[in-house]
Amino acid sequence: MAETADDRLRLLIERIERLEEEKKGIGDDIKDVYSEGKSAGYDAKIMRQIVRLRKMKPDDRREMEAILEVYKTALGID
Amino acid sequence: MAETADDRLRLLIERIERLEEEKKGIGDDIKDVYSEGKSAGYDAKIMRQIVRLRKMKPDDRREMEAILEVYKTALGID
Repeated sequence: MAETADDRLRLLIERIERLEEEKKGIGDDIKDVYSEGKSAGYDAKIMRQIVRLRKMKPDDRREMEAILEVYKTALGID
Repeated sequence: MAETADDRLRLLIERIERLEEEKKGIGDDIKDVYSEGKSAGYDAKIMRQIVRLRKMKPDDRREMEAILEVYKTALGID
């Protein structure tokens, strides 16, 4: 039997739904690792910051940190 | 050699990074399926709406659609 246009659309949508499920599963796995870190005494919020900082190029990170310092000083946050 | 606290933190962060990579890969796969749909003549934006609607419970979906109609009428969108 030939694949109709409706079948084709349905199959595409179902593939997306399966992939979204997988993506959600990995998101849950990530949460589990943060929980494991928390159980080991690490602060999950700071772990998230570390992940974000490691994603940046060192130069970009240093620039961001320098600008952050300027803003903190400007606003009297020390 | 015993695992130090620093090793432990590093291993946790690396696990998160690997999972984030995987998640990103699946996100790219999802984009590919939308592109495939587009090539087949489907509107990607409307496919996204369909995915969102299919995620909802039918009752919730119908309620949302009814309220949307009320708002559209109220604002003269027909």
